[in-house]
Amino acid sequence: MTEPVNRELGVALLGMGTVGAEVARILIDNADDITARVGAPLAIRGIAVRDIAKDRGVDPALLTTDAASLIDRDDVDIVIEVMGGIEPTRTHMLRALQAGKSVVTANKALLAEYTGELADAANRARADLYFEAAVAGAIPVIRPLQQSLAGDSVELVAGIVNGTTNFILSNMAEKGEAYETVLAEAGRLGYAEADPTADVEGYDAASKAAILASIAFHTRVTADDVYREGITSVTAADIEAAKAFDCTIKLLAICERFTDAAGEQRVSARVYPALVPLKHPLASVDGAYNAVFVEAENAGRLMFYGAGAGGAPTASAVMGDVVMAARNKVHSGRGPLDSVYANLPVAPIGDVHTRYYVAMEVADRPGVLSAVANEFSARNVSISTVRQQADTPDRGARLVILTHKAPDAALSATVEALKNLDVVTAVSSVLRLEGTND
Amino acid sequence: MTEPVNRELGVALLGMGTVGAEVARILIDNADDITARVGAPLAIRGIAVRDIAKDRGVDPALLTTDAASLIDRDDVDIVIEVMGGIEPTRTHMLRALQAGKSVVTANKALLAEYTGELADAANRARADLYFEAAVAGAIPVIRPLQQSLAGDSVELVAGIVNGTTNFILSNMAEKGEAYETVLAEAGRLGYAEADPTADVEGYDAASKAAILASIAFHTRVTADDVYREGITSVTAADIEAAKAFDCTIKLLAICERFTDAAGEQRVSARVYPALVPLKHPLASVDGAYNAVFVEAENAGRLMFYGAGAGGAPTASAVMGDVVMAARNKVHSGRGPLDSVYANLPVAPIGDVHTRYYVAMEVADRPGVLSAVANEFSARNVSISTVRQQADTPDRGARLVILTHKAPDAALSATVEALKNLDVVTAVSSVLRLEGTND
Repeated sequence: MTEPVNRELGVALLGMGTVGAEVARILIDNADDITARVGAPLAIRGIAVRDIAKDRGVDPALLTTDAASLIDRDDVDIVIEVMGGIEPTRTHMLRALQAGKSVVTANKALLAEYTGELADAANRARADLYFEAAVAGAIPVIRPLQQSLAGDSVELVAGIVNGTTNFILSNMAEKGEAYETVLAEAGRLGYAEADPTADVEGYDAASKAAILASIAFHTRVTADDVYREGITSVTAADIEAAKAFDCTIKLLAICERFTDAAGEQRVSARVYPALVPLKHPLASVDGAYNAVFVEAENAGRLMFYGAGAGGAPTASAVMGDVVMAARNKVHSGRGPLDSVYANLPVAPIGDVHTRYYVAMEVADRPGVLSAVANEFSARNVSISTVRQQADTPDRGARLVILTHKAPDAALSATVEALKNLDVVTAVSSVLRLEGTND
Repeated sequence: MTEPVNRELGVALLGMGTVGAEVARILIDNADDITARVGAPLAIRGIAVRDIAKDRGVDPALLTTDAASLIDRDDVDIVIEVMGGIEPTRTHMLRALQAGKSVVTANKALLAEYTGELADAANRARADLYFEAAVAGAIPVIRPLQQSLAGDSVELVAGIVNGTTNFILSNMAEKGEAYETVLAEAGRLGYAEADPTADVEGYDAASKAAILASIAFHTRVTADDVYREGITSVTAADIEAAKAFDCTIKLLAICERFTDAAGEQRVSARVYPALVPLKHPLASVDGAYNAVFVEAENAGRLMFYGAGAGGAPTASAVMGDVVMAARNKVHSGRGPLDSVYANLPVAPIGDVHTRYYVAMEVADRPGVLSAVANEFSARNVSISTVRQQADTPDRGARLVILTHKAPDAALSATVEALKNLDVVTAVSSVLRLEGTND
């Protein structure tokens, strides 16, 4: 049944970088298909850019530096935000939503701070706020969490959501090379930016963890709530040691719902490099690919896999949102509202139960293991596996310990105590182990 | 921002088998969460079953054998259909939709035949028709295809969508056992039904292929349009031979859009056991798990993975649809309409370009390969790899050939010609190879 074609809908595009250029291309090249899917044609009313002199392969009459006036136009129904940054972007988004215009954005940093404010504005104006592209690029993960799992209870979301760090860790594992070597290669290949801090220190993943946790647990979680460690101190030796435990190392964004000792539901959002068992579906997600693993009470284990970045994949996610927002305009409907009814407390990292991997240089004499083991048992931390690695002539032996699950605070206190032990020369690495049920 | 709670919405549940019992449990146990997500409480008005005398762990006053009267109740807003079968189910669904009630169904066989009729009824009454649970159980795949990829062009969907056959093929590959042995084991473990025909002959997967192709390509595809082969003739020797080509064998439901020689867009939907390269993401989907691999023009390669069957996972998908349908009732909105605007012609299998794997017993004498190769080249089929397997004293040699892509009709004509060659004792296996770009 063909739907009647309605009045043209106007689109304002803010930003024309890698993603914006692809969004414009799709809007223009696929206009007929989009019209059929929406039930009305979409027309680009204007594109806000910083420099209108630059040739961008589109009608120059569309370009403007005045984003606010573009947003305000009466014939703009949908605002696509791919300009990035916090301000003036936030002000633009609020302006659009307050005027009842639907907003589609890929801006994870903005959302990780201001989803509450933006969602309130959208709710008041009964406008749509969509952001599938903000997490894991082309991989549909926001919509499945918000809609497909709307009748289930999500228990865990564990994602490889940053392509740069996954490229680096995959290559370190594959080639046995050092972090710095692979980082330099990633830069040459365009997988790492000139200043890679946001990626390698986990800030990008932490923004995404905040968004995922908010949606999965119906609770407002911001980037500040996310515990964060980057990958800069992961060594080739760690990856070798992980292999000996049939694991690899991945930077994970983990969102977890758990019941604390008092029987209360709490959520945790955290980003860190972790050992992942090779048989876990996340372990084989290599290179610049992303994947989001979900455990829900009834659905069980799910995984979503695909390209996590890049102009065309991200534009695909943006355009899915644009088509849905446009359909809602045509049919006077609205997408799912932002819903934070559960409002669960966010637990500090110390209260989270995790497993630790601790590598240390120790004196090569009797009694060392006993002294080390004492520090674990003194804090009720149970050891799962001990591995003594080949002696190094000048520095004694290398001891690697995997623990069972324990409160992170007890684990980190144990590590501090180990550093003060006479027999421990140095604690060389502390990582967590995820993806097991022990 | 908490939404105002609206009037109670009434739910009619048709069927209380494995899935229905889980749906009822979730509706009752998770009532508070569901109310928060919908913005209104959901109440079960009744459950239609065949035998009301049986104890089902719910209030017996809810049970009825009169599905039609239950559907007709003024206080029923949403009908959940998990009773299965074609009639009277189809009549019930149409009755509900015509009365403007939203329908959530997991009935792939019904949808594969009657989606057109049901969608027309839904469109006329502006009611929702949701069926996420009909394909790949708990794995969100309908909604991602319909919504997340609404701004993209899907080129290929290749799914492992039948748990029984995947369990059988995985176990054959792992243990080197014969089809019959593993089928018997699957029956003992509850992975295969007493009459496994619908699974092992590919009928179940063909229904799902029809649904996936319809949504991916905005074209009405029914089960009759789907080319189908089952797994009953796959042998342990085929799986061994596949391993030698770094492949495994999977039953795939493939939906493909392609441009034919005349430059016209056509679609193909087909189900058959195929060799899949071990490095392809689908190859490592083992046991009763399902996965759907998607290639789209802009999004690139995506994969969705999870539990494809079972009461709780299927109920999770049903409940996601129920919550979305209920939200639409509360907000007077509607989900995406059935849209078959593209209406592309479905190509017969003979016009599809595939790669063949052909295993044959041949005479062990000079000139055999040349005679065999002649039959391929006579039909413009290019050979990729030839492998001669260990001689069998009484039957000559075993020859295995992989082709490049060619029209299926040319490939199948080649196989017919090979059967008539003097030097070919028997063509023992013909399978296709998928998941490569050659």
